Amino acid sequence: MQSFELDKSDILKIKQALEGNEETLKTLLSEYHASEIAILFESLSQEEREHIINILPSEIASEVISEMDYEIHPEKILENLDPEKRSEIMEELDYDDATDIISQLPQEQQDKILEGLDAEDASHIRNLLNYPEDTAGGLMNTQVLKVNSSLTKKEALDEIIRLSEEMEEFYTINVVDNSNKLVGIVSLKDIIKSRYTVHIRELVNDDFVFVRADTDQEEVAKLLSQYNLTSIPVVDDNMHLLGRITFDDVIDVLQEENTEDILKISGVSEDEELSGNWKEAVKSRLPWLVLNLGTAFLASSVIRHFEPTISKIVILSGYMTMIAGMGGNAATQALAVTVRRISLNDLTDKQAYQTVIKELTVGFINGAVNGFIVFLFALFYDAKPMLGLVIFLAMTGNLLIAGITGASIPLFLKRVGIDPAIASSIIITTFTDVFGFLLLLGLASKLLL
Amino acid sequence: MQSFELDKSDILKIKQALEGNEETLKTLLSEYHASEIAILFESLSQEEREHIINILPSEIASEVISEMDYEIHPEKILENLDPEKRSEIMEELDYDDATDIISQLPQEQQDKILEGLDAEDASHIRNLLNYPEDTAGGLMNTQVLKVNSSLTKKEALDEIIRLSEEMEEFYTINVVDNSNKLVGIVSLKDIIKSRYTVHIRELVNDDFVFVRADTDQEEVAKLLSQYNLTSIPVVDDNMHLLGRITFDDVIDVLQEENTEDILKISGVSEDEELSGNWKEAVKSRLPWLVLNLGTAFLASSVIRHFEPTISKIVILSGYMTMIAGMGGNAATQALAVTVRRISLNDLTDKQAYQTVIKELTVGFINGAVNGFIVFLFALFYDAKPMLGLVIFLAMTGNLLIAGITGASIPLFLKRVGIDPAIASSIIITTFTDVFGFLLLLGLASKLLL
Repeated sequence: MQSFELDKSDILKIKQALEGNEETLKTLLSEYHASEIAILFESLSQEEREHIINILPSEIASEVISEMDYEIHPEKILENLDPEKRSEIMEELDYDDATDIISQLPQEQQDKILEGLDAEDASHIRNLLNYPEDTAGGLMNTQVLKVNSSLTKKEALDEIIRLSEEMEEFYTINVVDNSNKLVGIVSLKDIIKSRYTVHIRELVNDDFVFVRADTDQEEVAKLLSQYNLTSIPVVDDNMHLLGRITFDDVIDVLQEENTEDILKISGVSEDEELSGNWKEAVKSRLPWLVLNLGTAFLASSVIRHFEPTISKIVILSGYMTMIAGMGGNAATQALAVTVRRISLNDLTDKQAYQTVIKELTVGFINGAVNGFIVFLFALFYDAKPMLGLVIFLAMTGNLLIAGITGASIPLFLKRVGIDPAIASSIIITTFTDVFGFLLLLGLASKLLL
Repeated sequence: MQSFELDKSDILKIKQALEGNEETLKTLLSEYHASEIAILFESLSQEEREHIINILPSEIASEVISEMDYEIHPEKILENLDPEKRSEIMEELDYDDATDIISQLPQEQQDKILEGLDAEDASHIRNLLNYPEDTAGGLMNTQVLKVNSSLTKKEALDEIIRLSEEMEEFYTINVVDNSNKLVGIVSLKDIIKSRYTVHIRELVNDDFVFVRADTDQEEVAKLLSQYNLTSIPVVDDNMHLLGRITFDDVIDVLQEENTEDILKISGVSEDEELSGNWKEAVKSRLPWLVLNLGTAFLASSVIRHFEPTISKIVILSGYMTMIAGMGGNAATQALAVTVRRISLNDLTDKQAYQTVIKELTVGFINGAVNGFIVFLFALFYDAKPMLGLVIFLAMTGNLLIAGITGASIPLFLKRVGIDPAIASSIIITTFTDVFGFLLLLGLASKLLL
């Protein structure tokens, strides 16, 4: 399971199986981990997702639903399921996950779903629905490993084993053979529960996640969070156990990677220390600013080319900065959303294409709306309708370009193996500056002189 | 320990105690958790940190060192310690932490420190030093809970208990009294190790971290990552146990908060879904762009005011966009670093003040360097030394303002309780646009006409 990368071939296989008979599909699905199916769901239609959930065993279906990206709406699947299947799945879900999912539905739907559950489950979930989503109460699970302080050791162990039946995660121990080769994992629960004479090899689970020592830390973080592991074993090329990585290290990695993303997207070198002194900050940022100055010379050469036009219509210089500034901001918006999306999930070709189309559409609409506002201003304040038309066209065109470049440059960089966050706002605004000036001044020269 | 917030009074108490006698300082320090001392270190000088590490017991000192922000250089403390104390501390550190820290030192220093350790420890660390920092090998700890598959249950349990002696984290179980009040935690290890007739109350640890149901999720994430917990209990106002939050939920929260930060800083509403359609994207971004258009009218009114100047020196219009663009980028850099710093750590008043001074310095230097480049261009290409001087002054002044606003606006927002990331590049660039045009065109009117 070390290489969990899903690609187009997986999606194709699933899509084909969806058209064939149910048994083939079931067999194919059984080859994937629930969290992998949840990822594949992003490339499937709502109907296809519902069909798959329907034929999966309830305990797997519930895992898939709890792992699904909330943006593709697991609650809609629950809403449309056959009530009996739905109740089965709901009973398998952790209370906190069940609550998060159904809280997305209107009150009426929530009640309908809760009526199908046994009274205790329903009351747990109703209780959790009262806490705001972004508080500790909204995050917590009410199934807790707890013992009464008056119990004896023996009673406590029995109670712990009883309680842990309902909980998936439990401390895992790596199992090796005589040559220190990793052969699997075993949960402490299984050890404690077993007879005293049982051999560990009888308990070992050989379907587990591990990484090699040279695996990139971002990949490690993704695996740990995807499979909800407290730790992950590290092995060499011959499967010898080298060490383990725990979740707390991974939290640090995620924070570090996120800092790098924010800095790079803002034109700051990724290795600038947040609390570094001014010397380090100058060293980290000056190169980017000089680069920006170079691109600014490019933009200003466009302006120089149109100097005769500007000297005849001086008012253009005020609109120039407006067109360029708006283009830069719209490009930064498209860039931030696209970079963040790439860094959380790998996009398929189709998703990448859809992203560019979406950003182009957004840029066109936002450009037209803002262009129209400026058109009205030029019409009523400057009383120059043709000037207003020129500005409208330049604004719309420039924000369209902003959307296209803001989405396609990071996607292109990712494709050729470069960190997409390097497509900082500094680089992207070069396009919108140059193109914005060309459009505005070019159109003005043609239409206004 | 629920309220772990450290403030200025803690720092003052420590500073005072540092000047008094050693016993008072020791008593005071014993009131703090190691990770809290690590945070207090950020407000102390290098000498003060070394003094504290010297008088702390080695097992606490090692925890403090492993929890210290790497930006305040734990390796420098190790470097300067008395060799015997240093070896004691190094032996208490997890191998992965020890490796991360000494990897920051030059080879020669590394060798000197490793010579002071026993051969096995030194060889573990030397081994880990070979892995690149950002790979699984660089993250992993070589102390692993593992058992040989041929062991029996009894042998395995003995081995697990023996191995877990060396490891801090281990599964913890919440302990409640008859009214479900949380009285403490107990580690599974302690239960397994004890006699069969012992009562849990004899094993319970009442120094533990918990949260209330209404605690903000960011706070929960901070606690979990600060105290390296796999889960955290949630209680009501009367300490009744309500549930628990596990680390995997926290990873999701961190990713979500980071996405919001990146989006807000780029002028996108925090609730825009990354994979949302174009309608949602327009709804989320158009208001920001219209706001930006409003501020752009403000900037262009400055330009209109100076129209007579521009019509006499048309070349200024090319330099205008350069000054404004550079100011906007420099402000975005300062903003990104400051927002990220605030979101990872709370800053003291002194640190906030230092941040503004630092950004002001960085802005001044970067402005002067870039201004000088443009001065040379105006001198040699346009053959206009006075124009060059005006541009030099405007560039330097505008990047100075960029540094001040980029740092002080998010700090101010944080102080008045508003999310600092809302100080998006859109808002911040208004200042640099307006001020940049005022400076350039104002100076040009005075000095060039």
